Amino acid sequence: MIADHDTIVAPATAPGGALAVIRVSGDDALKVCDRVFRGRTPLSDTPGHTLRYGRIADGERIIDDVVAAVFRAPHSYTGEDSVEISCHGSSYIVSEILRLLLAAGARTAEPGEFTIRAYLAGRIDLSQAEAVADLIASSSRAAHAMASTQMRGGYSQKLESLRDKLLQLTSLLELELDFSEEEVEFADRGELRETMQRIEAEIERLRSSFALGNALKTGVAVAIVGAPNVGKSTLLNRLLNEERAMVSEIAGTTRDVIEESIDIEGVRFRFLDTAGLRATDDRLERMGIERTLESLRRARIILHLVDAARVAEAGHCPDLVQTVREEFGEDFVPDGGQRILKVVNKTDTAPAGFRLPEDAIGISAKRGEGIAELCRALRDTVDTGAVYHGDAVVSNSRHYEALTGARTALRRALEELDEGLPGDLLSEEIREVIRHLGSITGRGAIAPDEVLEHIFSKFCIGK
Amino acid sequence: MIADHDTIVAPATAPGGALAVIRVSGDDALKVCDRVFRGRTPLSDTPGHTLRYGRIADGERIIDDVVAAVFRAPHSYTGEDSVEISCHGSSYIVSEILRLLLAAGARTAEPGEFTIRAYLAGRIDLSQAEAVADLIASSSRAAHAMASTQMRGGYSQKLESLRDKLLQLTSLLELELDFSEEEVEFADRGELRETMQRIEAEIERLRSSFALGNALKTGVAVAIVGAPNVGKSTLLNRLLNEERAMVSEIAGTTRDVIEESIDIEGVRFRFLDTAGLRATDDRLERMGIERTLESLRRARIILHLVDAARVAEAGHCPDLVQTVREEFGEDFVPDGGQRILKVVNKTDTAPAGFRLPEDAIGISAKRGEGIAELCRALRDTVDTGAVYHGDAVVSNSRHYEALTGARTALRRALEELDEGLPGDLLSEEIREVIRHLGSITGRGAIAPDEVLEHIFSKFCIGK
Repeated sequence: MIADHDTIVAPATAPGGALAVIRVSGDDALKVCDRVFRGRTPLSDTPGHTLRYGRIADGERIIDDVVAAVFRAPHSYTGEDSVEISCHGSSYIVSEILRLLLAAGARTAEPGEFTIRAYLAGRIDLSQAEAVADLIASSSRAAHAMASTQMRGGYSQKLESLRDKLLQLTSLLELELDFSEEEVEFADRGELRETMQRIEAEIERLRSSFALGNALKTGVAVAIVGAPNVGKSTLLNRLLNEERAMVSEIAGTTRDVIEESIDIEGVRFRFLDTAGLRATDDRLERMGIERTLESLRRARIILHLVDAARVAEAGHCPDLVQTVREEFGEDFVPDGGQRILKVVNKTDTAPAGFRLPEDAIGISAKRGEGIAELCRALRDTVDTGAVYHGDAVVSNSRHYEALTGARTALRRALEELDEGLPGDLLSEEIREVIRHLGSITGRGAIAPDEVLEHIFSKFCIGK
Repeated sequence: MIADHDTIVAPATAPGGALAVIRVSGDDALKVCDRVFRGRTPLSDTPGHTLRYGRIADGERIIDDVVAAVFRAPHSYTGEDSVEISCHGSSYIVSEILRLLLAAGARTAEPGEFTIRAYLAGRIDLSQAEAVADLIASSSRAAHAMASTQMRGGYSQKLESLRDKLLQLTSLLELELDFSEEEVEFADRGELRETMQRIEAEIERLRSSFALGNALKTGVAVAIVGAPNVGKSTLLNRLLNEERAMVSEIAGTTRDVIEESIDIEGVRFRFLDTAGLRATDDRLERMGIERTLESLRRARIILHLVDAARVAEAGHCPDLVQTVREEFGEDFVPDGGQRILKVVNKTDTAPAGFRLPEDAIGISAKRGEGIAELCRALRDTVDTGAVYHGDAVVSNSRHYEALTGARTALRRALEELDEGLPGDLLSEEIREVIRHLGSITGRGAIAPDEVLEHIFSKFCIGK
């Protein structure tokens, strides 16, 4: 993880396509490629942002006809000289070209190493680098919008402005030290308190956006719960089919759809496994119940499914806590952050005169009735306004931890202020806040190797 | 399938990589891309073989930072103006860019449509177009070498030279018609016969290369047969592990390895399912036996596995036909083209003084002993000399059928020659041979739509 510029190589595309792209970057990238590339002119003599048609050959043996895209430092992703070789998408050809480039002096890139170089070259900060990985992984409009804002530096700017304000405070406090004999206070303690509180509120806002940000990034967790035969599987299949029908317009783009998760108007909902089992003493079944309860606890939305016949009988929807106790023999209390949607199924076979309770959504999973309304209700539980507006939303757990650290330090500073502690101690505490915020972008100080390794090990090869 | 130049678009890379490439081609390709691309200058004003950095946006909303590679007609794969948009490899981003390009006037390309355009533009012939698909699918050195030779036109040249010779014959024969009243023979019948026979031999050589070509392209079929517990599965696992160890040097390139097939020095061997079952009257088991016999019939190599203890007892390897009869209660006679390898397993537990028969290979699948020798023997059954030498080898069943048609017509012509039939009839028969050979490259006449459709429907999207 040192600031080296040796020549690295990796495939940048997944196997199985018509085309494959192999990425090469480093001080000697052009020279290394020229050892295996046969074009009209060597790539070393080719200007930046130019395409060259040619062949990759191993001695007399032609491996493939390729197009080489030449990027010249500093106008490349890594800031170094780079070449992107576009060849036929055969796994054999890709491995042969890699083999030749390695023999020509390149080495295999670590996951994320191209992006590390962009970071070390100062082209992007750490949070932007992390956003690149999120952007590549994004599979919904909301996840894309968050990663996009973060990659474009909107989030970094926000953090920088908080850091700047805090640095101003420390400057004022540290100025007092220089005049300590005179016991002046350059920083009015009342104003100081107000500024620190405003900053704390900002940090808290960012910090609390993580619940939404994380849900949007990994998919909003939904648990479907209800008595046996109430139609949980039928509903899930109906929802999944609904989406398949919606996305089938553009062929070839949805091969990697994640099972049991659906996209409703740009938000990904992920259905947790809640295979319901009746309470028994059987050890295996107990494990199943534990898992279901765990899903309920983890869910952001609990979709409580009840049979229309049962609602007709009782005159109202049964209580979730009561249902869980009956079905699983366990107590479950939803926490404040969870939303519960009451859904009445089998409305098509409901007794004559059946009236849907006002707080419930009526569906027939079997016939596909009411599904659009249910989707609407699911979607309404998530407010994507801030995300689409380009506001900073935290979706990275490393950032969340840093913000938590910053908040704790800032609260400590506020206490110290109230206790009338001297400016130098206060300043030291505020520097701790700054350090936490700075660790998110990596600005102020280059991040230590272990942090970089942790961040970039999650990257895919070739980025 | 008409020679249209409307603007087509498709993803050219598989989902799941760091990068994705979207291909656009057609008369209006640059104009269509400019509707969604924001760069310093429009792509329409960009010279060919140039890269442009920019953004794809949907109104105010930025979809991604991209690099657009501009190709100008006729210097592109399709011969038309083309753009390759390189974006972050997110399925969401790819589908959004596709959506925007479709809205901007492009339409989704059919599988192989970019290559059809290259063919219709006369940049490549039909057999070269087919080789593009084979090249992309190639996963071994031998399959790659065949596709590569074919794509570079080596095979087409061979066929063209045969066609030229036949066209010369017909010209001479048709010249006789103009002088028919004078009863001259411009074409000496003896020479004619000799030439036709030489051509027939050439066609027959090509035609018979299909057995090897097809095996190299789809993998050389190997059946492992032997009594229960002789170690068939242990051997297969050993062979598969051996290869995994061999290919693990370069990470990220072997994710699409086909199960139960291995690469030995550039040749792919495909192991057929031969789950042996003892002969019974049970209907299900009968089906299993039928399947095993079918595998034996289809195999190019039969690996006859026997237990060292049994060999020690008998003093020689048991006969394959006898083994099949004992194990499956069926007669099986290997055909002339099949190679049988006698392999003695469990040599590590053979009785003292055990001597390996001279025609057998001794292994211990459990310990991994003798596996390298066995691989060597498997590899030696396949002669790749012609393939690596760049000779024309037929690997396409459409070509095989055309060559069979050509051979039949040529034999008929030879018979007619011997029967002393007049030149015009003979000429007509030779024209039939020419027509068959011409259908392979599509030269001489544009291939009819249904032929194109048949060929290109097997292509992947984006090529």
